Amino acid sequence: MKYFLILLFGTFVSNAQIASEQLNLMPWPQKIKLFEGTFALSKNFKVNITGNPNDRIFIGATNFVRRLDGRTGLFLEQSFLTKINEKPEAELQINCTRNGKIEINEDESYQLIIASNKIIINATNDLGALHGLETLLQLLQNNSTSYFFPVVEITDSPRFTWRGLMIDAARHFQPVDVIKRNLDAMASMKMNVFHWHLADDQGWRIQLKNHPKLTELASDGNFYTQKEIKNIVQYADERGILVIPEIDVPGHASALLTAYPEIGSKVGEGKITYEIQRNSGIFNATLDPTNPKTYEILSSIFDEVCPLFPSSYFHIGGDENNGKEWNANPAIQKFKQDNNLMNNHDLQTYFNMKLIPILKIHNKKLMGWEEIMTENMSKDAIIHAWRGTNEGQEAGGALIKAAKSGYNTVLSNGYYIDLMLGLESHYLNDPLPKKIILSPEEKARVLGGEAAMWSELVTPLNIDSRIWPRTAAIAERLWSNAEVNDINRLRKRLKTISFRLEELGITHIRNKEVILRNISNNQDTRALNDFSNLCEPLKNYKRNGGGKKYRMHSPLTLFADACNADAAQALDFNEAVNTYLDNKTVANSKAVTNFFKKWVVMNNDLIALSTNAPLVQPLLPLSQILSDLAEQLLSEMDKKKKVNPTLMKDLLEKCNTRSPADVELAVYTSLKKLVDIQ
Amino acid sequence: MKYFLILLFGTFVSNAQIASEQLNLMPWPQKIKLFEGTFALSKNFKVNITGNPNDRIFIGATNFVRRLDGRTGLFLEQSFLTKINEKPEAELQINCTRNGKIEINEDESYQLIIASNKIIINATNDLGALHGLETLLQLLQNNSTSYFFPVVEITDSPRFTWRGLMIDAARHFQPVDVIKRNLDAMASMKMNVFHWHLADDQGWRIQLKNHPKLTELASDGNFYTQKEIKNIVQYADERGILVIPEIDVPGHASALLTAYPEIGSKVGEGKITYEIQRNSGIFNATLDPTNPKTYEILSSIFDEVCPLFPSSYFHIGGDENNGKEWNANPAIQKFKQDNNLMNNHDLQTYFNMKLIPILKIHNKKLMGWEEIMTENMSKDAIIHAWRGTNEGQEAGGALIKAAKSGYNTVLSNGYYIDLMLGLESHYLNDPLPKKIILSPEEKARVLGGEAAMWSELVTPLNIDSRIWPRTAAIAERLWSNAEVNDINRLRKRLKTISFRLEELGITHIRNKEVILRNISNNQDTRALNDFSNLCEPLKNYKRNGGGKKYRMHSPLTLFADACNADAAQALDFNEAVNTYLDNKTVANSKAVTNFFKKWVVMNNDLIALSTNAPLVQPLLPLSQILSDLAEQLLSEMDKKKKVNPTLMKDLLEKCNTRSPADVELAVYTSLKKLVDIQ
Repeated sequence: MKYFLILLFGTFVSNAQIASEQLNLMPWPQKIKLFEGTFALSKNFKVNITGNPNDRIFIGATNFVRRLDGRTGLFLEQSFLTKINEKPEAELQINCTRNGKIEINEDESYQLIIASNKIIINATNDLGALHGLETLLQLLQNNSTSYFFPVVEITDSPRFTWRGLMIDAARHFQPVDVIKRNLDAMASMKMNVFHWHLADDQGWRIQLKNHPKLTELASDGNFYTQKEIKNIVQYADERGILVIPEIDVPGHASALLTAYPEIGSKVGEGKITYEIQRNSGIFNATLDPTNPKTYEILSSIFDEVCPLFPSSYFHIGGDENNGKEWNANPAIQKFKQDNNLMNNHDLQTYFNMKLIPILKIHNKKLMGWEEIMTENMSKDAIIHAWRGTNEGQEAGGALIKAAKSGYNTVLSNGYYIDLMLGLESHYLNDPLPKKIILSPEEKARVLGGEAAMWSELVTPLNIDSRIWPRTAAIAERLWSNAEVNDINRLRKRLKTISFRLEELGITHIRNKEVILRNISNNQDTRALNDFSNLCEPLKNYKRNGGGKKYRMHSPLTLFADACNADAAQALDFNEAVNTYLDNKTVANSKAVTNFFKKWVVMNNDLIALSTNAPLVQPLLPLSQILSDLAEQLLSEMDKKKKVNPTLMKDLLEKCNTRSPADVELAVYTSLKKLVDIQ
Repeated sequence: MKYFLILLFGTFVSNAQIASEQLNLMPWPQKIKLFEGTFALSKNFKVNITGNPNDRIFIGATNFVRRLDGRTGLFLEQSFLTKINEKPEAELQINCTRNGKIEINEDESYQLIIASNKIIINATNDLGALHGLETLLQLLQNNSTSYFFPVVEITDSPRFTWRGLMIDAARHFQPVDVIKRNLDAMASMKMNVFHWHLADDQGWRIQLKNHPKLTELASDGNFYTQKEIKNIVQYADERGILVIPEIDVPGHASALLTAYPEIGSKVGEGKITYEIQRNSGIFNATLDPTNPKTYEILSSIFDEVCPLFPSSYFHIGGDENNGKEWNANPAIQKFKQDNNLMNNHDLQTYFNMKLIPILKIHNKKLMGWEEIMTENMSKDAIIHAWRGTNEGQEAGGALIKAAKSGYNTVLSNGYYIDLMLGLESHYLNDPLPKKIILSPEEKARVLGGEAAMWSELVTPLNIDSRIWPRTAAIAERLWSNAEVNDINRLRKRLKTISFRLEELGITHIRNKEVILRNISNNQDTRALNDFSNLCEPLKNYKRNGGGKKYRMHSPLTLFADACNADAAQALDFNEAVNTYLDNKTVANSKAVTNFFKKWVVMNNDLIALSTNAPLVQPLLPLSQILSDLAEQLLSEMDKKKKVNPTLMKDLLEKCNTRSPADVELAVYTSLKKLVDIQ
């Protein structure tokens, strides 16, 4: 933790009452100077705004006061902030020089100075000031009776200008309130780009008045009206967030082609039809790039979509076109020959290039997944890097290639939060790893990154738990200094950050209880909760192998949906095992065997629960094996009875087999360490 | 419980596998015949619809399948229902003769027949069929591994045609998602009228394009757009629910007069202005009934509001006009004299009568709170009875008077759920009590009742917990036979009903955890939860005495907001005390003293918690007194040590003093019984 003192503290005052380790800031600011003393919060606390900010600061400051009030119960007197310099005597003074613009490379810096009787936020514009308010909320401390802020000086600005979250609202529709609460949470983590995946094989989610067929035939009634879109764009703007729409073409087009089969590439006898997909996976439905009508329809779709989004970028997807329909279509093959297009990749570039002038009419530049990066692609485009070792590529390879080739680029490889991987893999995934040498110009093209929430296995009930709190770690990676990378320190802060997300309506904790209560059939959920803190959902898309088990309407109210990456009790157990293995004292052994005793009780509780709860049944095999192994290890460690090593190994391996509950035991590796030394 | 056997069971089959006591139906159906045997639910279960229903049955049946799937995790194969007779082989057959109309006195009856291999719902129209689906979901049973329905025949229809819930979205705005989830919950309880209180002193919540000033000046930005209103009316229609809008006039008009002060009754020097209120209470702002412009503006407001709501009724409020502005305005006094209006009541009638032809243009009849019932009021109006002993009136008096005077009438007195009274007071509040003798025609004018959720002390975070589950008891009162009135049986069923409301997104359980977690400052919430199950929020508006403590932006994240009427552990304690007092066995004594031991531990836990949680501090005085009294009673009952009776009485009375946490101990009465016998 050396770097905190050296890099961040500057003139660290050794007798400060509050140490930086006590601060649960995220993303960690660029510079903090802590001083002795505190600012006491009282019900008279007020906020005043000066300068020439955008009106969004009034909304932000009002929300700030309400959140502070809800958290402290102080009955703060100030209600709504609506005017410049309304309370010149206020203890918190916010000054912004100018109106902030919602676009990339805007200045988001701020300075926060807390003295014992005054707080000042200075920022070039309201965007920086909003970030300053979030930092201030995170700084709130308390003793047993009162609330206060530490005396501190913070100077802060982001390392990367693009700190995004993509939500796929196509596979499982996510209603307006889900989007809004996630925008609130993003803003609290200083994230500034919301990438909205609005169409895919499973549904078309945006109302188009010129093309009512799209939602009539390909949405199951689940779509955003244009009013709702505008409302969300406005809501995002008020929180300093840019919204980038995505209409995925030419692949992922089953929904579009359900309404307009005439521009598909499929050949066959009789009338060609498409239908929206109910499974996950990569499908054949692909637009016909040789058909002029394709561009007519897309152009008229863009005519209506583009004005809804002030952003200067438009995401056209462009990923995972499997080429099957193109290969099977003789006319398309002939077109390739006639136009000297060597392969489907070239044909897709041809298609993409045709979209550039169409988007230009609306002053939009093209953004697309990395497959769009081909020789002739315009250098105006943003390349969205997503593939990695999972797809047989070098991790982040496209990002570096794009930057070197002159493209602005954004990283999502390593930030796929739907893979259900642990914090560490995302947190340590730096868009600019030290080993990569880039020129300053090339580095500047690496705009930042985006967490990607694909929605095959999420509904409004569980989506928050897949996004949060892990996305906070990604937010820190994109905002903070590269040297801020201590995973243990992250975990400690994240406990508070995760709790505080509830203030913004994020449902990751509360809805876990709902799922467990449903599984328990309204019985006591303690044993289920304990087990859920030892288990993690299967990773890397193994849960929905081949995309066939879970369809778009399958229940996501199961045990795996209540579990999460970074299972909490598993982390504690792993630490206890490591401590014990380092130093086999009685106390360290006891710390480990206490877990075993709990697991035996837990298994019995689960069995008891299952007599009136069919949804508990799929959990029992894994719980039983864990309990059996725990009993064996207890015998060895507590009672010093030697256990048959074959039996032990057998039990251990059963701990590692696929559970009917679609989860895996997050304690397996630590258990293996213990078994291996017996 | 005699009536269940006699009235409801008819040919009750004595060897039925499932007894009616096992069924958690609510509202309890008119007729149930249980037979031996069960219908086993499998993943192949499908639904088919025949007849000539409204399309809403497809939405209802699709939601039914998804809820069944989420609850059981069966991966049911059927996705979206969209067509008549799509699955003729389906196990569940729904037949509706005709399209249901969303209006009062529509036929809502249904018949549900479950055989071991087939389920049939027959209904005149889709409204009855939707009710049948809710009953079917409530009938689902399980053993340890599977789900099934009992073989049963149910014939059902409502006792009253008006089974409503009013939500006040004016004092605290309630966003669209709050309204929608409550509409879902209403439908699950077979409620059919949503009364939407859209304007009051604290805010104007409906967008009017001809009157943008109303939301610009009097909403703080919190209002429903017309699209949102239409969307909610449609959503309600899909669930068989009629929406009645309320614009409260001529009193409760601060918001309206903030935009249009020129039609207010206030006199004074200089420019007359009004502003929206931040406190609760009855305010002076009142429209000027003598000013023609008042009717011009109201008429043009109604021109825009009325077409948004298909209902043939329009609620004009008409309550709590304190008359102060009228009395202080010489021109209004002169108008009264000139027009032979004896008092303000007459003047208000004059005003109300002027609204009737304005509403008639839109084919709307007038509905208003009981104050509108005056000599000349049109018999077309619906009288909404609300006053009772709290307001110095006979409970429900206006209802009976209205029915006898020839008005249709709806009861809300006794159904004010914001008073935080217990279940019993609402459940036993029959609109047609036996002691009241009415002719058949008069009885028919008693349309039913409405739960009233005034929103002085509710936000989206806690509103569900104030509405549910108590409103389910009111729903049963209005649907079921008058003889279904056993409070213990209600409580037992309500435990399951309350749990099942989570399926529809109702947040009463989950958000309690959120509030407690905030109070605990992210520490263990068990002691807080235990204490919350002993305490109830202050009743009858005592919490916000005079409307001054809590303003519209005050935090409602406090302990009282996590507590609820009918505190669960208090009910258990009261039962244990009564059992002990009936029969002072050792076991019965132990059952009581076990509570005391828990409370002593709980108090210590709360003290420990408070060292890092300022919001726990206000709870400690009450918890400490309870713990002290528990220790004294423990000494007496367990150790047979005689305690100083003065000390004991003193402690008891301290248990009954106002707590800084704005709650009261729901165990006080039982404690008093114990102290009194020592």
